Amino acid sequence: MNHTQEVVSLILAGDVRTAARLMRDLDDGAAGAREILKEIYRHSGRAHIIGITGSPGVGKSTLTDRLIQYLRQEGKTVGVVCVDPTSPFSGGAILGDRIRMQRHALDEGVFIRSLATRGHFGGLTASARAVITVLDAMGKDYILVETVGVGQDEVEIAATAYTTLVVTVPGMGDDIQAIKAGILEVADILVVNKADRDGASRTYQELMQMLELRTLRKDRSWKPPVLMTQAKDHLGIEELMAAVKEHREFLAQDGGQALQRARASRVRQEFLELLKEGIFRHLLAQMAADGRLERIIDDILAKRSDPYSASEDLVLSILGPVEPSA
Amino acid sequence: MNHTQEVVSLILAGDVRTAARLMRDLDDGAAGAREILKEIYRHSGRAHIIGITGSPGVGKSTLTDRLIQYLRQEGKTVGVVCVDPTSPFSGGAILGDRIRMQRHALDEGVFIRSLATRGHFGGLTASARAVITVLDAMGKDYILVETVGVGQDEVEIAATAYTTLVVTVPGMGDDIQAIKAGILEVADILVVNKADRDGASRTYQELMQMLELRTLRKDRSWKPPVLMTQAKDHLGIEELMAAVKEHREFLAQDGGQALQRARASRVRQEFLELLKEGIFRHLLAQMAADGRLERIIDDILAKRSDPYSASEDLVLSILGPVEPSA
Repeated sequence: MNHTQEVVSLILAGDVRTAARLMRDLDDGAAGAREILKEIYRHSGRAHIIGITGSPGVGKSTLTDRLIQYLRQEGKTVGVVCVDPTSPFSGGAILGDRIRMQRHALDEGVFIRSLATRGHFGGLTASARAVITVLDAMGKDYILVETVGVGQDEVEIAATAYTTLVVTVPGMGDDIQAIKAGILEVADILVVNKADRDGASRTYQELMQMLELRTLRKDRSWKPPVLMTQAKDHLGIEELMAAVKEHREFLAQDGGQALQRARASRVRQEFLELLKEGIFRHLLAQMAADGRLERIIDDILAKRSDPYSASEDLVLSILGPVEPSA
Repeated sequence: MNHTQEVVSLILAGDVRTAARLMRDLDDGAAGAREILKEIYRHSGRAHIIGITGSPGVGKSTLTDRLIQYLRQEGKTVGVVCVDPTSPFSGGAILGDRIRMQRHALDEGVFIRSLATRGHFGGLTASARAVITVLDAMGKDYILVETVGVGQDEVEIAATAYTTLVVTVPGMGDDIQAIKAGILEVADILVVNKADRDGASRTYQELMQMLELRTLRKDRSWKPPVLMTQAKDHLGIEELMAAVKEHREFLAQDGGQALQRARASRVRQEFLELLKEGIFRHLLAQMAADGRLERIIDDILAKRSDPYSASEDLVLSILGPVEPSA
């Protein structure tokens, strides 16, 4: 058995240290790491991926913590990917939270990986997907993907989960607006956390109204429920997990057509992200090697060209025109 | 004079309505808009671009508002680009702020453009750069670029300004950490806003220490000053603008070598962002037209391939290997 095969076997057996090393190697662009990822990719696709997104301060990480606890009590194994600079999982929140999270570090059934900066893949999204693939291949039953709903990329990572939770809190009029602006449409389940706060029922009403008004992107036959939680006090977690399972069953019904669509959508996004980054990097390496890049920059600085014309001309010279299908 | 020439002339003359229409057209990908952008690009490069970034809640938009006021009192014209979902300029903050900002809407010398979602260019960064080009060609003396320092893209937009302000507030230990994590290195000037709060002098000390410890990316001969402001109370704004002007003079000294470097760095980033997006879009259009994309997705779903191998193979087949320079 060669080294790659050995690492693949260990990952598939759920070995924590091997997985952690692979994730680091992937971020560093270490030789061979990508080959291992290719091998284990074919063994992924079994975990139920749950996206958790929302503005900073809505309590996403406490909610994530409670979901981990709940799933562990059920005997499920859990992987966590955190792309949220405000989360204690990423070391971004107050010290107390961070310490609280660390108890899971002693639990072999939980694997937490935080992503704060771009790794070798060039984007947080691609790094997050690679980590999800590793956790999935490790055999985790559930993968929780916590992302802060600020940047569009972060929202997209959560949105390509099989079940996406959008978390808000009462009394943040702006939050509702932010949700209006695009986050709502990726929600499979809406969560009003900190539901003991004033205005919880109004927030609930507003969300219900919005849901009535708009058709949803992902699958129109699923009507997202709105759930109230108080994650800090462990309230509403069971009901939330029941909704997650209901959504999972919804995806699996009718021979799993909805799940197949969700999977195809994940694969498409994953491939296109890798292609976008990959073709750009390769081209950049070529242009740096043959001096084309410096010539173009000089031309633009001397106003002999502009970035728009220069990039268009280059693309056309490489790819040729787009031919309509026959 | 054809339509393009007419629009170009109006933009160069600073016509607000034409500029606003062009920005909308650019976002929508309207025919001809990009051609106009190419024309006016060659007339850009005169404005002093100031980036303003920092975590949500540090008062970036109040500071921006005060800088606008200050520059207008000096008789300077100002363009503002806002890529910050938490800013009142983007309609993201509380109503009072938003109304306060609108007074500038009546001032012909100020042009404010908010970007909340990706336009035709495919990325907020590219959209922001296009807006900056239009404002620059309009003849604005200063362009303020307000971005929330959460995502790496947002930080980068601000970082490619000629003078980048990184704003923080006292007593946010995490904020300092966030700055440590990468924002500090893009700062030409550090601002401790809300300096009447407890802990302001400690924050000041901490920032000074950090500055001592690290060499700075942009230009090592410039040592970023740390300034205290209370933007809400109009305190420290004059001193801040004095520091901005000092940095501008620094860039212009010795025949403007530092400014030339900053310009080349802007152009390089701008070109590469357009190239990255452009080559991907073009390839995607080709692959959709000839059915390649669906075949690849099917192969991955059937586990005959994986996204990593599929994207690598495709890139290599299009671009060929990277040849080392002769």
